[in-house]
Amino acid sequence: MRVAMLAPISWRVPPRHYGPWERVVSLLTEGLVRRGVDVTLFATKDSVTSAKLVGVCPQPYSEDPSLDPKVWECLHISEVFERAEEFDLIHNQFDFLPLTYSKLVRTPIITTIHGFSSEKIVPVFKKYNGRVHYIAISNADRHPDLDYLATIYHGIPLNEFELREEPEDYLLFFGRIHPEKGAVEAIEAAKKSGRRLLIAGIIQDQDYFDKKVLPQVDGRQIQYIGSIGPDKRSAILGGAAALLHLISFDEPFGLSMIESMACGTPVIAYGRGSVPEIVKDGENGFIVESIDQAVSALEQVKKLGRPRLRQYVTDNFSDERMVDQYIEAYEKVLKLEDQRRAADISWASGRSV
Amino acid sequence: MRVAMLAPISWRVPPRHYGPWERVVSLLTEGLVRRGVDVTLFATKDSVTSAKLVGVCPQPYSEDPSLDPKVWECLHISEVFERAEEFDLIHNQFDFLPLTYSKLVRTPIITTIHGFSSEKIVPVFKKYNGRVHYIAISNADRHPDLDYLATIYHGIPLNEFELREEPEDYLLFFGRIHPEKGAVEAIEAAKKSGRRLLIAGIIQDQDYFDKKVLPQVDGRQIQYIGSIGPDKRSAILGGAAALLHLISFDEPFGLSMIESMACGTPVIAYGRGSVPEIVKDGENGFIVESIDQAVSALEQVKKLGRPRLRQYVTDNFSDERMVDQYIEAYEKVLKLEDQRRAADISWASGRSV
Repeated sequence: MRVAMLAPISWRVPPRHYGPWERVVSLLTEGLVRRGVDVTLFATKDSVTSAKLVGVCPQPYSEDPSLDPKVWECLHISEVFERAEEFDLIHNQFDFLPLTYSKLVRTPIITTIHGFSSEKIVPVFKKYNGRVHYIAISNADRHPDLDYLATIYHGIPLNEFELREEPEDYLLFFGRIHPEKGAVEAIEAAKKSGRRLLIAGIIQDQDYFDKKVLPQVDGRQIQYIGSIGPDKRSAILGGAAALLHLISFDEPFGLSMIESMACGTPVIAYGRGSVPEIVKDGENGFIVESIDQAVSALEQVKKLGRPRLRQYVTDNFSDERMVDQYIEAYEKVLKLEDQRRAADISWASGRSV
Repeated sequence: MRVAMLAPISWRVPPRHYGPWERVVSLLTEGLVRRGVDVTLFATKDSVTSAKLVGVCPQPYSEDPSLDPKVWECLHISEVFERAEEFDLIHNQFDFLPLTYSKLVRTPIITTIHGFSSEKIVPVFKKYNGRVHYIAISNADRHPDLDYLATIYHGIPLNEFELREEPEDYLLFFGRIHPEKGAVEAIEAAKKSGRRLLIAGIIQDQDYFDKKVLPQVDGRQIQYIGSIGPDKRSAILGGAAALLHLISFDEPFGLSMIESMACGTPVIAYGRGSVPEIVKDGENGFIVESIDQAVSALEQVKKLGRPRLRQYVTDNFSDERMVDQYIEAYEKVLKLEDQRRAADISWASGRSV
């Protein structure tokens, strides 16, 4: 099976630090190659992969402000469609723009929808519903107006995360510094419980960071430790007594939650978006509705048992499971396309008689 | 000849006030229809045309901030390419994004390059050089790395502009309020010459307007009269003693210069971009190099003779001349494509023998 994997070009594949879409692309691509799938990865030129790499954009545009995103996006996307005949399947992980090239080629297309940045982008997905096969990354993120081939949760390589049975005493915020991710809520919970908090993540909203987060960072109880690259992720996550995930938006899928649990670290979260599909309240974490409930939950996290959390991720959120499900989805699409083609031929030959 | 005309969707076709690209699209489309060309105009849904209208985007996105430009641009562009087989030719007046769909269809494509907003967009034009036939809007705007089918200057309908032999005493700035267009330089020239100045145009750079322009507007000598719609354009331009066009960028083509001369109003300009192709120094206007030279030129404009300026526009910059040249370009492209197809066939049949 010859698969063209279309990655975003905001970050490298795999990302150097932040870049969840690119990270998932990398994990899936490497997993597919291990299974013998013939994958051509369309990503930034500096990407690293065991698949064949086609790079048009020299660097990730989020790392090189001299690159015009609009220019490089369309050059990158057109490249895969101009070569569509070389592939049995195009797997688009690049949001909505590639959809608008899809009716100009015959190759079947799967699109993983990594979330809707706004309701404003839905018209594009609606127009190509039927032409393109959609994959949701959580049931919560399914849009009622679209048809989906499947929901496939992200998966992570368990060997990159180590179970830490005896954590340190700190709490952890791990994500983009942006109001919707809840850094301020995490600070409030830490202060109310008298616990230490480490804040890790890229600053996406500088104004929010400067006005709401930084004034509370004292370097002792509340520490900001910057963006944590892949090499230190396991140590930081594993050392935490709990991950505070007090989000105020419907997050399509929270990778940090499964990474945390893979280290044995329980998650205390507001039940928005994908949270109820990942956290089983009272079993492997706590879904709370207020800062006070989060503080109470902190007193109970020890009871959950850290090895059990890792086992839960092994059973449900491994990269191998994700790869299995995507191969299944690819095969389903190729079968559907075969059936459609056969129906076209029998209809055409029936007509010619 | 069935032509698909692809307009931008930032403004309506024709624009209600500002929108030079959409204005040219409208003038050309209406001219082609008058000549019997079968034109389908792809533009905002509220556009007004005697061609067939295909609208995907409900309103111009510059008039409706609820519309996401990226979403509606790609839906609008993909529409014309998905229907490419219906047309003998696609005329793209929508910048670079449509080029990236061009290799996925067989229909010949002409692109009028309305200027390079930045050198950063050139890679797209370079990639599709050869596939797409480029039209420059002035020789000054030709990029050395690209091949062009022709330079075709914009043209205007002379009947929309009235020759005014005896103007009023004011000077005029007519264009976007943006540092590169020279409103501040016009103010300086007006003050030095002790003349009245009217400033007309949309505010594109609010900070520049607030800090550099507005403090000098006194409502007497220096007046800001806002954006001037098509209905009042002739009166404002015709009433001016001279148009001050002291630009500080290489303007691809200055529509306001030919509109001004069509009313008999001479232009005093810095010789950047297309200016030397439009203004013949000392004959129909003045090309100057400083504010002081502009002030001196003001004393000589009366000698030029206003009817002669209108005649110059009639002879060189009418919409009918523009339409003629585009029809010529279309025919040239269709002939080239026929030749290429014939060559392909003879090569293929030669091989099969």
